[in-house]
Amino acid sequence: MKPIRVGLLGLGTVGAGVAKVCRTHREELEEMVGAPIVLAAVVDQDITTPRDGLPLEGLPLGRDVSTVLDDPSIDIVVELIGGLEPARAYILRALANGKHVVTANKALLATHGEELYAEARRRRCMLAFEASVAGGIPLIRSVKEGLAANRITSLYGIVNGTSNYILSKMTDEGLEFGRVLAEAQAEGYAEADPTFDIEGIDSAHKLQILATLAFRTCVGLGDIYVEGITRVTPEDIALAHEMGFRIKLLAIAKSADGRLELRVHPTMIPESSPMSAVSGVFNAVFLNGDVVDDLMFYGRGAGQFPTASSVWADIVEIARRLAAGHAAVPQDLPVLGRNPLGLKPIEEVVSSYYLNVSALDRPGVLAQVAGILGKHNISIANVIQKVHQKAQAVPVVMMTHEAREGDMQKALREIDALPVIVAPTRMIRVEES
Amino acid sequence: MKPIRVGLLGLGTVGAGVAKVCRTHREELEEMVGAPIVLAAVVDQDITTPRDGLPLEGLPLGRDVSTVLDDPSIDIVVELIGGLEPARAYILRALANGKHVVTANKALLATHGEELYAEARRRRCMLAFEASVAGGIPLIRSVKEGLAANRITSLYGIVNGTSNYILSKMTDEGLEFGRVLAEAQAEGYAEADPTFDIEGIDSAHKLQILATLAFRTCVGLGDIYVEGITRVTPEDIALAHEMGFRIKLLAIAKSADGRLELRVHPTMIPESSPMSAVSGVFNAVFLNGDVVDDLMFYGRGAGQFPTASSVWADIVEIARRLAAGHAAVPQDLPVLGRNPLGLKPIEEVVSSYYLNVSALDRPGVLAQVAGILGKHNISIANVIQKVHQKAQAVPVVMMTHEAREGDMQKALREIDALPVIVAPTRMIRVEES
Repeated sequence: MKPIRVGLLGLGTVGAGVAKVCRTHREELEEMVGAPIVLAAVVDQDITTPRDGLPLEGLPLGRDVSTVLDDPSIDIVVELIGGLEPARAYILRALANGKHVVTANKALLATHGEELYAEARRRRCMLAFEASVAGGIPLIRSVKEGLAANRITSLYGIVNGTSNYILSKMTDEGLEFGRVLAEAQAEGYAEADPTFDIEGIDSAHKLQILATLAFRTCVGLGDIYVEGITRVTPEDIALAHEMGFRIKLLAIAKSADGRLELRVHPTMIPESSPMSAVSGVFNAVFLNGDVVDDLMFYGRGAGQFPTASSVWADIVEIARRLAAGHAAVPQDLPVLGRNPLGLKPIEEVVSSYYLNVSALDRPGVLAQVAGILGKHNISIANVIQKVHQKAQAVPVVMMTHEAREGDMQKALREIDALPVIVAPTRMIRVEES
Repeated sequence: MKPIRVGLLGLGTVGAGVAKVCRTHREELEEMVGAPIVLAAVVDQDITTPRDGLPLEGLPLGRDVSTVLDDPSIDIVVELIGGLEPARAYILRALANGKHVVTANKALLATHGEELYAEARRRRCMLAFEASVAGGIPLIRSVKEGLAANRITSLYGIVNGTSNYILSKMTDEGLEFGRVLAEAQAEGYAEADPTFDIEGIDSAHKLQILATLAFRTCVGLGDIYVEGITRVTPEDIALAHEMGFRIKLLAIAKSADGRLELRVHPTMIPESSPMSAVSGVFNAVFLNGDVVDDLMFYGRGAGQFPTASSVWADIVEIARRLAAGHAAVPQDLPVLGRNPLGLKPIEEVVSSYYLNVSALDRPGVLAQVAGILGKHNISIANVIQKVHQKAQAVPVVMMTHEAREGDMQKALREIDALPVIVAPTRMIRVEES
């Protein structure tokens, strides 16, 4: 039987994992495909530095991308170089040459997915991206195929391992964000430039990909409200715990009344929630579908092998279809509904809130704050007033009932303008269920 | 475009759910398929009793199975009548007529799966069974496709909602098994004849299906050690909690050194384990693959709509391929490896154990028990001796280190033959990780 020939762009961490699995699991992979699989070309700018656990001898390694993109014998191109360019150009070139594409590139799909899906559709090629969201968890195919009969109503994800690792460590050890970040960088759990991870941008990329599939609505990155974890303090974490909550960076999408809300931000969730137990570098995604009800998926969100597992799942699926002579169909790509959902601006989102107000220790502060909140239709559920040992300022901590985000923003501006307020009020959104 | 015609056998709870979803979600289903879908024939012995929320008018409902099985215009047969016969004969007849089959029938697949898969392979038909395990969780396609590159090393499942509901309620309310079962039957959470659920047989069916797929090894029902939950007591549950454990009915498969162990029994798991939080009618399956590492799936394990969600996922996938003119391929069915795993008899399984020994309150009892355990190479990790108020007998409760099951069985026979022992020792296996 004619072998399926795979070309690999990028021999970094994940690329090396993909090559290793090809060596260690070839027999099973070929049984699953029903045809031989050949890693026919591997391209990287660095063709000399040894990769841990992967002898370079015998690998068809070179620096010329055309051996992957333009060689007519290559059936499937695996793009693992990351970033927007030249990854975008390479994928478009592969598709133009009639090649099927597997990618783990979440930033690219979140930014140029619409263009890439359209090009794949036009060229009648498959474009698979299981590895782009939640590492080794087979989430994309679950949403795309396993939940085909569902209208998704909500989706909550811990989809960034770095920020979850940092928050978990801050929680377990009571440490400051900056110190934990530095340690995570030293240990290789955070990158030298951690911006995408800690500012929520990587989570937003994944939410864009997931929400487009799950809600059958084309979502733009700009439609997602994004707030990172850099301002979360050990005090917030301790107070959350006192009230039975944990702080997680969640990617949230909810649909109601034909409108979709999309947001990434630190979120207090009940300690009894299964999401609350997801710690360290693990990812979890909770979904509710109108037919299936609640579902949760949990697993490693990154790493050489978990990501390679998802890349291979896509290669095997495409290769199996090529071996059987089955062409691509438009439904392989994200199917957008005839009636896409409208988008709800963050100001209209409703949530409850944790507020930590730093005020001088004067009588009447709570009354002033409560007055401003009440004026903006925000009612207080619960107040904790702490005696702070070291400073003049007293944190007044409260949980509100549900309120509109726009009202909360206005109230916060007024509160922070009060003369007794000594630092900007810290606000964290709360998801009760 | 030519419509895909679906015939439905069985308009019980799940069948009615499948018909309802067809009415409420037709537009999305057809977009996902890329062709019209028609529920062309529905067969049930009862064609008059109203089904809750499903008007029978307009349904192509009849009592003659040949309208589904023999009509050449039917493309996909959905078998939801359950049980071994006539379900087996109907599926074989549908396959012989070249029809693709979707089934939720775990008892049938666990008993006659090999025959049915072989027949589907011979007839070049698809046979899909997402709904047979873990209700709405897209678990079968995740294992079959999402984990294609993995050798699965272990699998732990809470896959029977009824027994999990009973254990959860015994745990939360401190009630006896018999009373909770009676309440569950009254509330519709347990069937009039609950044997399959409470004796672990239903869990074994699901383990057979899952393990065959995950370990690429044809497993017989008789290869699975099965023990139900009827002998679990509120005392065991309370003592487990005291030691930081919860008791769950787990379906377990582990592979090591080329051999596979398969067992269903009440199991103590750490309260900190994510499986421990799975309560009521929910299911969860934990998997470890050699590439992907740990994964967990969680969702509703039964019920009209969750099960219908999985049935529709299968219908949509088959229909999409039929609409595209793609034939079935052998890899659609469980792919067995060239080197199937051997089976490990239960006597060779290694585990740690909880023992609850009921002895007369005499000096030296613990020494006698410990002596017998020691003779059989079982060492004690931890002892709790309780003062029992109402009786002469004292429960001596202990946790052992890891030991061979065969040794434990021999030791238990000797312990229970001691004159001071007043009731059979209760033993529950412990999974630490």
